[in-house]
Amino acid sequence: MPSQSSRFEIAPWSIGWRGWDDARQARRESVFSLSNGHIGWRGSLDEGDPCEVPGAYLNGLYEQHPMPYAEDGYGYPEHGESTVIAPDGKVIRLLVGDEPFDIREGRLEHHAQELDFRAGTLHREVYWTSAAGASVRIESTRLVSLTHRAVAAVDYRVTALSGPIDITVLSEIVANEPLPEVHPDERVMAALERPFDAVDRSVAGTRATLLHRTRRSRIGVAVAMDHIVSGAANVETTATDDVARTTVTVRLAAGEGIRLQKFVGHEWSHALTDHALRDRVEAAVSTAVAREWDGLAREQREFLDAFWEASDVTVEGSARLQQAVRFSLFQVLQSAARAEVRSIPGKGLTGPGYEGHTFWDAETFVLPVLTYTLPDAAAGALRWRRATIDKARERAEQLHLAGAAFPWRTISGRECSGYWPAGTVAFHINADIAGAVLRHVRVTGDRDFERDVGLEILVETARLWVALGRFDADGVFHIDGITGPDEYSALVDDNIFTNLSAQRNLRGAAHAARRHPSAARRLGVSDEEIGSWELVADAVAVPFDAVRGVHQQSAGFTELERWDFAATSSEQYPLHSHFPYFDLYRKQVLKQADLVLALQLFPECFSAEATARAFAYYEELTVRDSSLSASTQAVVAARVGHLGLAVEYLTEAATIDLDDLKDDVDDGLHVAALAGVWTAVVWGLGGMTDGDDGLAFCPRVAEPITRFGFGVRIAGEVLRVDAAAEATTYTLSGGHPLCIRHFGEVVELEPGVPVQLATPPLPSPGETPTQPPGRSPRELRAAAQA
Amino acid sequence: MPSQSSRFEIAPWSIGWRGWDDARQARRESVFSLSNGHIGWRGSLDEGDPCEVPGAYLNGLYEQHPMPYAEDGYGYPEHGESTVIAPDGKVIRLLVGDEPFDIREGRLEHHAQELDFRAGTLHREVYWTSAAGASVRIESTRLVSLTHRAVAAVDYRVTALSGPIDITVLSEIVANEPLPEVHPDERVMAALERPFDAVDRSVAGTRATLLHRTRRSRIGVAVAMDHIVSGAANVETTATDDVARTTVTVRLAAGEGIRLQKFVGHEWSHALTDHALRDRVEAAVSTAVAREWDGLAREQREFLDAFWEASDVTVEGSARLQQAVRFSLFQVLQSAARAEVRSIPGKGLTGPGYEGHTFWDAETFVLPVLTYTLPDAAAGALRWRRATIDKARERAEQLHLAGAAFPWRTISGRECSGYWPAGTVAFHINADIAGAVLRHVRVTGDRDFERDVGLEILVETARLWVALGRFDADGVFHIDGITGPDEYSALVDDNIFTNLSAQRNLRGAAHAARRHPSAARRLGVSDEEIGSWELVADAVAVPFDAVRGVHQQSAGFTELERWDFAATSSEQYPLHSHFPYFDLYRKQVLKQADLVLALQLFPECFSAEATARAFAYYEELTVRDSSLSASTQAVVAARVGHLGLAVEYLTEAATIDLDDLKDDVDDGLHVAALAGVWTAVVWGLGGMTDGDDGLAFCPRVAEPITRFGFGVRIAGEVLRVDAAAEATTYTLSGGHPLCIRHFGEVVELEPGVPVQLATPPLPSPGETPTQPPGRSPRELRAAAQA
Repeated sequence: MPSQSSRFEIAPWSIGWRGWDDARQARRESVFSLSNGHIGWRGSLDEGDPCEVPGAYLNGLYEQHPMPYAEDGYGYPEHGESTVIAPDGKVIRLLVGDEPFDIREGRLEHHAQELDFRAGTLHREVYWTSAAGASVRIESTRLVSLTHRAVAAVDYRVTALSGPIDITVLSEIVANEPLPEVHPDERVMAALERPFDAVDRSVAGTRATLLHRTRRSRIGVAVAMDHIVSGAANVETTATDDVARTTVTVRLAAGEGIRLQKFVGHEWSHALTDHALRDRVEAAVSTAVAREWDGLAREQREFLDAFWEASDVTVEGSARLQQAVRFSLFQVLQSAARAEVRSIPGKGLTGPGYEGHTFWDAETFVLPVLTYTLPDAAAGALRWRRATIDKARERAEQLHLAGAAFPWRTISGRECSGYWPAGTVAFHINADIAGAVLRHVRVTGDRDFERDVGLEILVETARLWVALGRFDADGVFHIDGITGPDEYSALVDDNIFTNLSAQRNLRGAAHAARRHPSAARRLGVSDEEIGSWELVADAVAVPFDAVRGVHQQSAGFTELERWDFAATSSEQYPLHSHFPYFDLYRKQVLKQADLVLALQLFPECFSAEATARAFAYYEELTVRDSSLSASTQAVVAARVGHLGLAVEYLTEAATIDLDDLKDDVDDGLHVAALAGVWTAVVWGLGGMTDGDDGLAFCPRVAEPITRFGFGVRIAGEVLRVDAAAEATTYTLSGGHPLCIRHFGEVVELEPGVPVQLATPPLPSPGETPTQPPGRSPRELRAAAQA
Repeated sequence: MPSQSSRFEIAPWSIGWRGWDDARQARRESVFSLSNGHIGWRGSLDEGDPCEVPGAYLNGLYEQHPMPYAEDGYGYPEHGESTVIAPDGKVIRLLVGDEPFDIREGRLEHHAQELDFRAGTLHREVYWTSAAGASVRIESTRLVSLTHRAVAAVDYRVTALSGPIDITVLSEIVANEPLPEVHPDERVMAALERPFDAVDRSVAGTRATLLHRTRRSRIGVAVAMDHIVSGAANVETTATDDVARTTVTVRLAAGEGIRLQKFVGHEWSHALTDHALRDRVEAAVSTAVAREWDGLAREQREFLDAFWEASDVTVEGSARLQQAVRFSLFQVLQSAARAEVRSIPGKGLTGPGYEGHTFWDAETFVLPVLTYTLPDAAAGALRWRRATIDKARERAEQLHLAGAAFPWRTISGRECSGYWPAGTVAFHINADIAGAVLRHVRVTGDRDFERDVGLEILVETARLWVALGRFDADGVFHIDGITGPDEYSALVDDNIFTNLSAQRNLRGAAHAARRHPSAARRLGVSDEEIGSWELVADAVAVPFDAVRGVHQQSAGFTELERWDFAATSSEQYPLHSHFPYFDLYRKQVLKQADLVLALQLFPECFSAEATARAFAYYEELTVRDSSLSASTQAVVAARVGHLGLAVEYLTEAATIDLDDLKDDVDDGLHVAALAGVWTAVVWGLGGMTDGDDGLAFCPRVAEPITRFGFGVRIAGEVLRVDAAAEATTYTLSGGHPLCIRHFGEVVELEPGVPVQLATPPLPSPGETPTQPPGRSPRELRAAAQA
């Protein structure tokens, strides 16, 4: 498991890197990202250079650009949206004597960066001697506050190791930094060049504020900074349109130091006036200054202590896996903690990948984890979807459908997909959102949320499904010509994942509408309409190949030609970079779990035998060119008893970003894949399912894991699960007694009373399924590290 | 049939317009186009203004532009190609006194334009009085020479009706005229702005030559002009980079006139040096000057006399239909007569529509007509395909296929389609080309052509089919995931048209390879390979719906949901402008004939009963949002005995351009639809089929047509067919006796001996098939004229 290539230092509660290496700096910038879901700071060096992929992001801030098409079509989105680099307040440049500190010059004696999962900080330590022989120690610690949404801060210290040395520290906000290529079309990139118009700037003492507005999307952005400088230094603050700068100059004798505490406030808005924006960020900065660095850092640790106490995932037997599991959960937390009525983009706020867009990943992979670990963050993300429902209604109308059609990829809530066979028609996004609502309500028991936020989503998506599908002469309901999760298939009929997701959506809408009759009436829901949802739900097609005795990912799938895996070389992966779509679409080959995701999420719809057969069948076809597959395969592998394979998939999920298995971590982390690490442990090894009849577990350890534990929040309480080979201990924190199932047996847990239950013997799972040549999780990892 | 809206004057051998009307000038510019397949001059006014869509084209001249994609994909073409306006030598401006002649100013006493199908000229006559009271008569006659490929000419005469009047005539070549919008993407249009770099210019006496090169595609273009001026005038010739000008000044007394004969030479080349290009156009102009206008005009008429003598199509009973039929055939002739190893673009050389691209239209709709009327032109177009085969081989390799994959749309032979579901995967283009080769060889008997041009096309396309499809366990050969002719379907399996076309392609390749064994060996063809083609050909799937007793356009088609025609308003046509592709694709609705085209082209594959059932079934679903449908429906309607409906479709085909049924004639004529007029008469009313067992006819007249006749060239001779209600007369011009079938009965025709054969009674064809509401040919015409 430990990878030679990654070279990240292994520790239980942090991840570090020692020394310096020009190669793949961007990967470390992504891994060392700090975020609270509102602000994202990549792990770039304080001094700004060298830098591979710069980045400071504000969730929801975007610039609009024209969408380029070689041939036009009805309903194609006219405008795209792209993340832009927000005015960047993390920059602190340093002059030692009159030499700019640059790790590529002078002599770098020591360099270390460490992301601390409990402190919620990125710490850096440098010993450096300039070409002229001046030696300094630099320590910087950053945080993006989990308790003050608009605030990020840097504690920056320089100590003279020789002396005397003239030190100049330039603390800056820099706007209109160039965006890395986020789109292949030059014209799109041109539209994103220098996205901000300067609106206003102000300086007061050590505080400076820059106010900008994006050119096309007309979003106001304010970023302010203030400082506390310790030591007798000269401090001056200035601002131009795109740069605010506080300059600190001091002469240090050997052994003397200077400390700069920097507090940065961030806000953006479509609606607020410039004055209001400025007032808000300056207030945020004032609050932060009052707390000073130590206060912010203490609150940060307290927030995380509470989080980890409830939600830590322990894995014994592999230090690297333990680290990866906590890293993953920490980054998932960071992506959403303070998003609050914002989305969770595919890359979180860790990079410009996917133009900063949000996909189905959020609801399908990330929200289940958040609902069980940080439910308010999950609620916030769903409130964001609810806030975009008018755009989704307009889209449905444009498509001549009913209800709401949520976008496949977006920042603002408008559809931004430029390839309709894998965008517009991936309608499952709607059921994914509805499913996240239903789980959230089920797990939290929050009926107010259900009524005020969830119901409208459920109702409008239910209406979409009724309009989208059709009954055949035999009364079976079909959803034709759509695209399911697997991106190597498109325009299929009766994709099982989609159909079962729609079924859950429709039934959930019916239940919720019955539970909130007056709210439902306000949405125009009649008893007849509820009846129609149930009728459709009961009638959805679930294609099964009777000859082969296996479920079909979509109608006819198992009769398609098989991909010629034997003729495919390892250099030809990912397949979509080497083969045309049409050839992938017409053959049996999967980019990612699709039917197997249905197995994971709808266990009640498949017998144990059907699950095992389907898993084995689709394993042979799944190449995992997507990061959204390993965790699903881990879950189902464990469920059908192939625990070794499950651990392999867990390991793959845990290394996708740390070992850069997809060769694209430069652009940001795969938040959904990181969430999948939790899923692979909790749903996979923990054997969790969470249907209408409550939580169920079947925990089993497997080599090299000797013991593992996790916590799930349920109805405001925490259920800790601690699993070893022979037995599992369940501990409920408080509240009412809770019924769960352990290997099918119903157990009532009393608050505060640990219950230890034995692990039954593992029935023989039969032959281990095989993957396409070269595409087993072990081979994939080996290839990526080669 | 006569349309009030079109207002074109009805005459048997010409089409004219009297007066002036600002509205829809562009339509007349298209209709009055002159072309020889190498040069195209739209019917713009001599003086250049007013002008709606300017245009002078050279077949094959294009500029390259980047292809814009919202999302990239493997195998997407990087570069597009667009026609550009060639340096335009038809411009002749006039000053009367010191007032520019402009029909919108002064007093227009008389204005008439007439396109003459026998003279091959566009004639114009104007009586005009300037604001200052000077009256003139202007007569101009243009031709684009059918006998001198590089030459076009204008005979321009001005007569003073009052006087004395100072007359100035400016005869010009104008380069870098702005191109109308041919692409929705601004960046593409920007790349096409001012496409020419000036390379050289020269003036000698009354001759001027401009030499340019396109910026990106690096194509050299030379246009030269020379003049013969009659009357004592002052003549001066000058040239700048983009304008060559001969200025003629003269004072005319009342009743005196001046005549300017203008001769324009055109050439372009990728490969030729600038000197060679200049020499060629100047030689062409010298030749033309030596012949003078009268010589060129005489040759033009002789060429056309010969053409009409063999190939005229007569239709008695409707003067407008007679005119439309001749207009159509004349424009088809013009699109190809002297193309010579160039393509036949969708719009010919009559406008910038479709960016000047060539599609399957050429081989499927236009070449069958040319093969029977102007076989050398058909051969030239196929030689062009053959000349692009290396690009098609590269494309096949890129797609991991074998043989050659010809482009869906192109100018140079490179794939330029930016929407792969209706581009890359419309693989039938390959069989369409092969089919045109096979027909051409069958009809002309030209074995040299088969060996030197056809064989390689047949072999490489046969290889494509073998690579593209697959045998199932039952030994049936399937071609999955492709798109057939109908553009409201995509990514289907076993499209019958495609499968039967592939079958013909494979069998044709096998026969040709056996006939030319040494040429085949040079292409690497072995006996085993020939055997594999025959094996595949014999095994292609032809899906049939046993429940409904009807052939399926593609596998499963008849089980799809039906389009809700009742809920579709007339404003929602064309459907692709009002509904998303996914919804069209997943339902039973046809943009254009698809299975019915298979019925037309492969009559031997369908019983009479199956033909009738299939025709009736698909009639209900076909909305004809494409111009490529009416003629096919005319043919099959006639074949199944619905003669009234056949005449309706013939009438629609004949009016698509003259009445602008598709509302896009501004951009150029629909050459394939024009070809379809011939097809609707000859294959439709004439009941012609042309399988391996020779020509067969079942001619029947139908209201309002009382008699019709046509000629087909076969093996170098002409067979004239003259059909009336009771009998048909067949006359073979010469050569060997020819066996044909008349209503199934084999008849041997002796050269020069007319044979009259009786028309058998028409069996009752049963109920007339119906079309979707509002989409019958009669309703469609009425809607277009409303």
